[in-house]
Order: sequence, then structure tokens, then C-alpha cells
Amino acid sequence: MTVPAALDLSSDAVDLLRTLIDIPSESRQEAVIADAVEAALTAYDHLDVVRDGHTIVARTQLGRPERVVIGGHLDTVPENANMPSRLVRVEDEDRVYGLGACDMKGGVAVSLRLAAALTAPTRDVTWIYYEAEEIDSQFNGLRRLADERPELLAADFAVLMEPSNAVVEAGCQGTMRVDVRTTGTRSHSARSWMGHNAIHDAGEVLRRLSAYQPRTVEVDGLTYREGLNAVGIRGGVAGNVIPDECVVSVNYRFAPTRSAVEGEAHLREVFEGYDVTLIDAVDGALPGLSHPAAVAFVAAVGGTPSPKFGWTDVARFTALGVPAVNFGTGNPSLAHHKDEYVPVADLARVEDGLRSWLSA
Amino acid sequence: MTVPAALDLSSDAVDLLRTLIDIPSESRQEAVIADAVEAALTAYDHLDVVRDGHTIVARTQLGRPERVVIGGHLDTVPENANMPSRLVRVEDEDRVYGLGACDMKGGVAVSLRLAAALTAPTRDVTWIYYEAEEIDSQFNGLRRLADERPELLAADFAVLMEPSNAVVEAGCQGTMRVDVRTTGTRSHSARSWMGHNAIHDAGEVLRRLSAYQPRTVEVDGLTYREGLNAVGIRGGVAGNVIPDECVVSVNYRFAPTRSAVEGEAHLREVFEGYDVTLIDAVDGALPGLSHPAAVAFVAAVGGTPSPKFGWTDVARFTALGVPAVNFGTGNPSLAHHKDEYVPVADLARVEDGLRSWLSA
Repeated sequence: MTVPAALDLSSDAVDLLRTLIDIPSESRQEAVIADAVEAALTAYDHLDVVRDGHTIVARTQLGRPERVVIGGHLDTVPENANMPSRLVRVEDEDRVYGLGACDMKGGVAVSLRLAAALTAPTRDVTWIYYEAEEIDSQFNGLRRLADERPELLAADFAVLMEPSNAVVEAGCQGTMRVDVRTTGTRSHSARSWMGHNAIHDAGEVLRRLSAYQPRTVEVDGLTYREGLNAVGIRGGVAGNVIPDECVVSVNYRFAPTRSAVEGEAHLREVFEGYDVTLIDAVDGALPGLSHPAAVAFVAAVGGTPSPKFGWTDVARFTALGVPAVNFGTGNPSLAHHKDEYVPVADLARVEDGLRSWLSA
Repeated sequence: MTVPAALDLSSDAVDLLRTLIDIPSESRQEAVIADAVEAALTAYDHLDVVRDGHTIVARTQLGRPERVVIGGHLDTVPENANMPSRLVRVEDEDRVYGLGACDMKGGVAVSLRLAAALTAPTRDVTWIYYEAEEIDSQFNGLRRLADERPELLAADFAVLMEPSNAVVEAGCQGTMRVDVRTTGTRSHSARSWMGHNAIHDAGEVLRRLSAYQPRTVEVDGLTYREGLNAVGIRGGVAGNVIPDECVVSVNYRFAPTRSAVEGEAHLREVFEGYDVTLIDAVDGALPGLSHPAAVAFVAAVGGTPSPKFGWTDVARFTALGVPAVNFGTGNPSLAHHKDEYVPVADLARVEDGLRSWLSA
């Protein structure tokens, strides 16, 4: 038995964040942090707490005309010599460093403080702290709720607290992986003319990738930038054998105006003449910034919304018909980096934005 | 303890070959077959038998003016559902199938029969049966003799009984492997413009390989065909990361008129602008067909010599100043194939050729 970690949700945001970082919670090892979050939230009478696996849902039940979801995940990628947490001042900026600081315990700390403090928000709130966002979606706690208990996600609007530099990042791009395969004929490399080299043939696949001009797509005033890239290549049998297969693994990031089905058709055109196998694909999410709930949110938190280039779980809300945006602490480019951190100023900025929205 | 295998060197060549095939002798597991070969040869008074590891050397000591080496390896590649041996008639041809039939127990069977039968050859003979030819040369029994007991390899001429369709295959090409590396900058694939894709850059390396025109080189009336091929490619960090490295593993087969040093310089020209790392390289062996011992050998065994495209241990003799050729049973293209076999007619043809040479 480990001693249960205790969380004081009334403590300073930096202290609470550092406590959260110092509870290891790599994906599939969220039991301790989920126990701590559940215990801390259950202490508040204004919250109705439900647990599903290591995913915690805490709801106000005030009968408000509007309900919003504010969600974040509890898990992190594996440790990379970035534990325990550290508070460091760099070039006039106070920062909290440590595994998950940016992705996304900064957002979780803010959200936990608000869940405890806002006993009578002007909108009913469903606070969600979920497991296993960083790994295959079969384990994802939000995916499981959407599939098995969608009533817990019912809302007029959702905010996912993924890192977004404390500004609203709207929608998300879709993502797809395909394998592009060339085939040849093996022979001994001392008699290469008796075979056909599949790796040489992959040169044309790489040429098409290099020559590809990705689109930029405008939606709701936001500019999405697409991308088409080899993310892996493999081929070869032995050092003395002409290889009979080469596989280029390609990742396509596409604007939310294009469906995954359309994206796949596009890739089959790009790689016409080659064997293309779809590995996985998920639709993006339209920004939905014209929705009244989104307009109110953007007005309350301020700043100019940006497009979200990466895929995030906001797409799960979109698929349920719930408009959703990303709004959280830290620079998304630092996610999964050894040196990830969160500026202390982001914690206050995001907390203030959400507080004013939920108090208006 | 396994029961020692017994070899009857006076038995029919097909029977002896099948007995040899049915003694498993994958590289590094040659103890049983080496014991059997040593015991069988030691029974003959005209042979002076020396053992080094699992390598057996049996010499006549008749004081002849000329000494020749006749060598073959005892090991095979791993089993591939091709045991035990089978005698099969296919389209009017009798064949012995089984692991190592072609590479090279057919040659070993012929050589063992001759070692036993030729009590007074016209040239002194050093019969060699060595271990670990099919794996890294650090284990190669012939390499070890050349390095540590070169006096056992002293000779005027050497015949290596690698498969050669029962005709003389002269010399061998050199072989070299280099890694050609491209480097880039990692980034998240959702923001690919922040990185630089090393796999895309490898497209130009593959283009140069596809466009490369290998030389053909004439030596002693033989035409050597060179070859330059990718035999492996690898790159990729994760499905959502722009890769910062790609490595193309390239195998160069070059005519024996070119040294390994010259070959490396050539590859550095071909891949100018890229990071080229030499992995390994061995010189080839000139055919040496104008040497008197080679002339006498070719005249005795008949047929028209061909060039040897692959690298073989003949190069070790060449490096010691001993002219050497390949002459053995079976089609070299079948070496290491699941369905390797030796035509029964090859056994007689090679045995007759060697017998007439050693009796003239």
C-alpha cells in the first residue's frame, strides 16, 4: 500500500501544481492521483462525484439553464529525468518545471481550484479528470465515457484544458496514418540484376512527399495549416539481399473542413500507383466559434482565438454535438519535452478567465 | 551425450552426402559433424590429421613438388523446414534436397571421398573442413587458420568447393557496406513546418542509387558485373514526430581490380554531400587464371571458367599469396534457399574433375 496522496484544493496554484506533478501518473498508472482527486472533490458538498475506472466526474447540480464541461487528463508520458517538480525563475519569468507541468497538470491544478472554490457558478459545471489520454484510445477515459456513459458528458459547451498558451485554441485538425508500400524481388546482392530493389522504388514516394504543397484552410477566421510527412521508413532483409519490400509510414494532418474519408481519398490520389494501406484516421473538429456558448466564452476569457493544429479530445465532444475549445496553460510545443514547463503567469490568466466566465 | 555420427567414406557419394545433411551443423553447432569428419579421416594412414576448434585439416605428406589446398565449410545456415535429406527425381534429373545440400555438403562429400580414396595423389593435398563460414568472420575457421596457423594453409594453389555449377568460378568480387545518413530536426507532426524531415531528404540518396550505372569489368577474359544497392533503410521516431534521422544501408559489390580503399573513395563521390560511414569492406580476389597451377587445374577439370560475383573465402587465400578458385557442386543461386538441392550428376562431375587433376 502506498500512502494516499492528499490534495489541498485551497492551496496556492503553484503549490497544488507541484503536488500534482510529484504524484507519478504515467498512463495506466493513475490510481494514486485519481484516488487523491476523488477524495479531495468528495469533501465539497456542492459537487456530485462519480468515478469510472480512474476517471473522476464532479458535477454541480444547481439547475442552471446552461451546463458546461471543463475537462483535463491526469496521465503523463513516461518520466524523462524531469522529476520532481522545480520552481525556477528564467529571464524574469517564474516557471514550474516537471513531468506533465505543461501537458497538462497546470490545467488540472487550475480546474481543481475552481471546482472547489466556485460553489455557485452561473453555469452548471461538469468537471472531468480522466485517465490515459497519452496512449492508444482504447484506454482513454473520456473515450470510454463518450461510448458508455454519454449522459455524463451532456453539455452546451466544453472546454478542454490542453496547453494553449492561455489563449483559446479552437477546433482541431484531423490526423491519419497510411503505409505506402513498394514491392520488389529478392536476390543475392552479389547478383542484384536478378532481383528488383523495393527500397530504390521508394525514392519516388519520398519525392512526392518532398514536392507536396500542403494546403492552408480558413475557417471562422482561423487558418489551419495542413501537413503530409513520412514519419517512418523501413525496408531490408539482410546485408547481402536485394530487398523485396519497403514501407513508408505517412502521417497526414488535415483541416477540420475535410473528413477522414475525404483525406484518405486524397492520399490515394497523391500516392497513385502505390499500395496504400490505411492504418488509422480520426476526424478533426470544426472550431464552432460562431456558436453562442463559444461567443460568450471567448468574450469572457479574452484574447484572440488561434487554430489548434494537433488532434485533441475536443473532437470527441464535437462528435457528440457539443461545441468545444482548447484553453489551458503552457506552450503546446513543449508537450512531451524533457524540459516542459508552465509559466506561473499562465496559471493565473487561465484561472481568471474561467472564473469570470463562470461568474458572469 | 549424443551418439557420435559415423561416416563411411567409401560409401556412394549420394549416401555420404545424405548422411552429412542429416547431421545438423548450423554455424556454432559443428561439434558433432567435426567429430565425425575427424574420426573418419584419422582412420586413413596416408593422412596427417590436425584439429583446430571444429576445423579439421588432413594432409598427405608425400614430398610432392606441389601442394594444393582443397577446402570446404561444414556449417549451414539455420534449418528452414528442409530436413531431413531427400533424393528426388525432377524432370529427368536426380537431386539431393536438404539443408546444406548445395551450400556446401555436396562439395564436402566429394572431398571426403577423394581424401580417403587418393592415397597417392600426384600433388600433396591439404584437405580442409572448416567451421562457421555462414556467420560473422570472427568465428570463421579458415580465417582463424590464416591468422593463427598460416603454415597449415601453405600451398601453390587452392580450390574452394563453394557451389559453382561444377564449373570453375574464378576470383571473387569485393564487398562493402556503408551507411548514408540524412539528418533533420524533430518537431510534432501537427506542426511539421517547425521541423525538417530527414526521411524526405533520403529521397535524393535513393534517386542516386536508382540512377547509378554499375560497371562491368573484364579480367583474364572474365566479365565481372558490379552492383550498388540499398539493402536497408530505417528512420522514424514515432507516428506523430517529424523524423530527425534516416539511414540508408548500402551494399557495393565491386570487381577485384578495384581495392576496398578505392571502392570507399568511389562511394564517397557517389554520395557527395551526405554523411557516409564505412561499416565493413573486404577486397575481392583476382581470378589469377594465368598462374601455371590454375592453368593446369582448368585443363584437368574442363569447362569454361566463369567469374564469381559473390565474395567467398578464396579471397583469404589470395591475401596469403595463394591463387585460388571456386569449384563445387550445385547452383550458387540456390544457396540459403529453403529448396536448395544438388544434382546428383554434379557430384560425379566435380569428383571426376578433381580426381583427374590429382592423378595426372
